[in-house]
Amino acid sequence: MPRIGIFDSGVGGLTVQRAILEALPGLDTVYLGDTARVPYGTKSPETVTEYSRRNARFLVAQGIEMLVVACNTASAVALPALRRELAVPVLGVVEPGARAAARASRTGHIGVIGTQGTVASGAYQRAIEAERPGVAVTARACPLFVPLAEEGWTDPGDEVVRLVVHRYLAPLRQAGIDTLVLGCTHYPLLAPAIAAELPGVVLVDSATAIAAEVRRALAPPDDRAAEHRFYVTDTPERFLAVAGRFLGRPVGAATHVDV
Amino acid sequence: MPRIGIFDSGVGGLTVQRAILEALPGLDTVYLGDTARVPYGTKSPETVTEYSRRNARFLVAQGIEMLVVACNTASAVALPALRRELAVPVLGVVEPGARAAARASRTGHIGVIGTQGTVASGAYQRAIEAERPGVAVTARACPLFVPLAEEGWTDPGDEVVRLVVHRYLAPLRQAGIDTLVLGCTHYPLLAPAIAAELPGVVLVDSATAIAAEVRRALAPPDDRAAEHRFYVTDTPERFLAVAGRFLGRPVGAATHVDV
Repeated sequence: MPRIGIFDSGVGGLTVQRAILEALPGLDTVYLGDTARVPYGTKSPETVTEYSRRNARFLVAQGIEMLVVACNTASAVALPALRRELAVPVLGVVEPGARAAARASRTGHIGVIGTQGTVASGAYQRAIEAERPGVAVTARACPLFVPLAEEGWTDPGDEVVRLVVHRYLAPLRQAGIDTLVLGCTHYPLLAPAIAAELPGVVLVDSATAIAAEVRRALAPPDDRAAEHRFYVTDTPERFLAVAGRFLGRPVGAATHVDV
Repeated sequence: MPRIGIFDSGVGGLTVQRAILEALPGLDTVYLGDTARVPYGTKSPETVTEYSRRNARFLVAQGIEMLVVACNTASAVALPALRRELAVPVLGVVEPGARAAARASRTGHIGVIGTQGTVASGAYQRAIEAERPGVAVTARACPLFVPLAEEGWTDPGDEVVRLVVHRYLAPLRQAGIDTLVLGCTHYPLLAPAIAAELPGVVLVDSATAIAAEVRRALAPPDDRAAEHRFYVTDTPERFLAVAGRFLGRPVGAATHVDV
């Protein structure tokens, strides 16, 4: 059975792993969360690329046959460098998300939300335009969404949640989008509140989109018990405290590693 | 004229440098912002201590005569290690803030707000108790305050600001505090909104408190033009875009460094 490597700036990439394992339950996985240097979304492309390189080298040394970059910011800025330098195939979340959005939109006006790094890179905007030339894309960074999600303030009935979501997304509604890419692994946790602000808009989760592409690229799984290993760059305690909620199944142990 | 080194996880420590330079205008300074690994407040004491060590070694190599740890989280968890390992005096923001709060309180009930790392360490609670045994301390982490301040959402009339400040601080008001330590370099930007939620409560800014201690420790300045150097671990652009606002004077240039 093939083994894939997945890295993210922290714990959010476990939602991508979860979607991949729902599509390919027998896949072996090695997950690396760069929890000592999280977040990537506010940092320069140079720094995010350098951290991505170190993460990727560590995972390649674990004998993986494919690398999945679960972090949107790293996918947006580091993919060309990783593809140039690594001997294994590298999939990021930006292209699958862009493809799914380009297919879903009827009006041809697509919204993208993500970190400052993801939005500033223009990667989603370019990928959507490449899929479907002439489409209009309105992108917006939503820096408060990750801390809201990490604080557990995600209920659409929560007044703080409602106001913050409204402040970021009302301009996208006014711009007339009919499809919105949730371009950050934390944002699906806010999907009910986002849907309440944007009724009728299709929400595209890159995790689901990339899982479909991994499934196409790899042989279908057998029904053996798969092996899942977890590594983090900070101490494992905080990661383990929330990892099960993100992955949707228990995470027994995680190992600290310097990369 | 003595030269001091100041480090912080990012740009917030410039408010500490600003307070120090208001007290000692002729002081030479070397500032290091660990912008590639910011924030420290959500990371383990082990990782924060290791990053603090690297920052401190870099600054000591610049020929400083005193080290100021401007980051509350690093002050809360790394000070014993730094004092053990360095040959120069090390000042953190926790002890001066705790002393100022212990002096200011009339009722003997003091509140402390900070990052998860600072609050979990119990450093402020211990330092206040050591200054004034028997005092009651109520501490609370406010994870959304830093992203609010970085987003520029600080106006007390802003409904999001008002609601978030109320949610975090209403329990402190109900607990009956008369003094509150702003235990994070970003929080003074929210001081007007915090004061509106807690009328009559004395707000203690650790930056002002540590500046007074640096002044006592060093010879008074002459009126020569002082030299200020700035280093960052991420690329300098984003740091330079906001540094002047935090320091209260122009920051001409900053140099990227790996530590």
